[in-house]
Amino acid sequence: MNAVSKGRLIGVGTGPGDPELMTLKAVRALAEADVIAHFAKRGNNGNARTITEAHFRPGVIELPLLYPVTTEIDKSHDDYRSAITDFYQVSAQAVADHLDRGLTVAVLSEGDPLFYGSYMHLHIRLAHRYPTEVIPGVTAMSGCWSQTGLPIVQGDDVLTVLPGTMSEFELTRRLADTDAAVIMKVGRNLAKIRRALEATGKLDRAVYVERGTMPTTHDMPLKDKSDDKAPYFSIVLVAGWTGREEAEL
Amino acid sequence: MNAVSKGRLIGVGTGPGDPELMTLKAVRALAEADVIAHFAKRGNNGNARTITEAHFRPGVIELPLLYPVTTEIDKSHDDYRSAITDFYQVSAQAVADHLDRGLTVAVLSEGDPLFYGSYMHLHIRLAHRYPTEVIPGVTAMSGCWSQTGLPIVQGDDVLTVLPGTMSEFELTRRLADTDAAVIMKVGRNLAKIRRALEATGKLDRAVYVERGTMPTTHDMPLKDKSDDKAPYFSIVLVAGWTGREEAEL
Ligand SMILES: C[S@@+](CC[C@H](N)C(=O)[O-])C[C@H]1O[C@@H](n2cnc3c(N)ncnc32)[C@H](O)[C@@H]1O
Ligand SMILES: C[S@@+](CC[C@H](N)C(=O)[O-])C[C@H]1O[C@@H](n2cnc3c(N)ncnc32)[C@H](O)[C@@H]1O
Repeated sequence: MNAVSKGRLIGVGTGPGDPELMTLKAVRALAEADVIAHFAKRGNNGNARTITEAHFRPGVIELPLLYPVTTEIDKSHDDYRSAITDFYQVSAQAVADHLDRGLTVAVLSEGDPLFYGSYMHLHIRLAHRYPTEVIPGVTAMSGCWSQTGLPIVQGDDVLTVLPGTMSEFELTRRLADTDAAVIMKVGRNLAKIRRALEATGKLDRAVYVERGTMPTTHDMPLKDKSDDKAPYFSIVLVAGWTGREEAEL
Repeated sequence: MNAVSKGRLIGVGTGPGDPELMTLKAVRALAEADVIAHFAKRGNNGNARTITEAHFRPGVIELPLLYPVTTEIDKSHDDYRSAITDFYQVSAQAVADHLDRGLTVAVLSEGDPLFYGSYMHLHIRLAHRYPTEVIPGVTAMSGCWSQTGLPIVQGDDVLTVLPGTMSEFELTRRLADTDAAVIMKVGRNLAKIRRALEATGKLDRAVYVERGTMPTTHDMPLKDKSDDKAPYFSIVLVAGWTGREEAEL
């Protein structure tokens, strides 16, 4: 038996959607990786793969990590939690098998890996056992406020990032107590988010961005959006600072 | 007189320090720009220029925007505010002069341009008058939590971004009411930040990062840092989620 030195784990931020928003470091990591792993739903290649595939090395080993089918189970249910935890456990083992053979494994992560990314479930299981590097990426929120030209925070502004999955009470309370806000995980929560913004007098300033920086993106003031349908890749932004006063001096 | 078509304004995010953390889009923008503008202090080329200069086109026009000497004036004083506002006004005019000649002007901005960046002071004065594009960048906070391998937020976590310039009372109140926190503009405020973290029971989890992703970077648990000296480029991070529980299942 040969002693094989351990491989390297690399969490690779892909940026928000536009392949040109990948970093030089991410491109290099993909060119050097032996294995490229990515989370995806069954029958769907995954957005992170679409963003990055032009940079895959010919012949690279691909390791798709396919989420278990969980749509029939309530997310707050114990069965859902244990199915997901098992899935991360099995995925971490699949990555570890390659690392144990001395291979470098790049794990794709939309946006920035350690910011609400699935990659972190592998990171917490593997980073203490293998040499690990995380390559940060442009977050979805940066992609979205840049696309709309919205200066989000300046000077002493406070920014609060809120998951749209929170209760309406909590959303409202936190929106009332911040200068700027980013609401992630909009999807089915848009009606609730709209009510919380309305209650705090912030609906007029809110901007809705769908598939930011992707070819099919569109954005608009939230108050002009006539329905409460939103895809998974959507976000709501409230700028802390308009700068109008300063510019008019 | 010839009618010259207007030039393009581009806000270019440089990323947090490591030149490899520039995006492909930022590199292309610099290669195509006629003029590259950047904010700097007199006698100092500016960090954004250092990060990006390898990609400047030979013969590109450089436009340094030099902050007025303001160290003698109290920052809360009206004279400081008016000196700074005049400076942004004059800087915007200097950029506009190039745009009026039909030239493309790239304005460098450390990290992400619209996230506490000086670029936004030009943006609010010019973006409604000239074709403008903002190229997002990897933020300092993403660079710092990636370098330290710290999963900052997951699931339903709330993230609050706080400027260290806030009052101790406000810092404490807001740290008490969030899952994860990022404290920017640490510099002279570290002693105050430490007290606010202590008061909220979060000092043990706080991580200090100096010059994240730059060659001279270092980071450590804040509780292990023996003094309260911090350079301009430093940040404090508190993760909302450790993931330990999940990984131990
Ligand atoms: C699991 S989080 C991943 C965040 C990602 N790691 C980042 O750095 O931004 C997924 C959420 O990010 C937001 N998101 C991701 N990409 C987006 C895009 N291109 N446009 C709008 N929102 C996006 C949506 O709110 C979505 O529900
Ligand atoms: C005016 S803000 C600019 C933020 C920048 N636009 C961004 O996207 O992160 C400057 C503050 O950012 C933080 N910062 C910027 N670069 C940093 C680095 N490389 N390491 C640690 N902190 C940094 C410091 O807290 C500093 O006081």
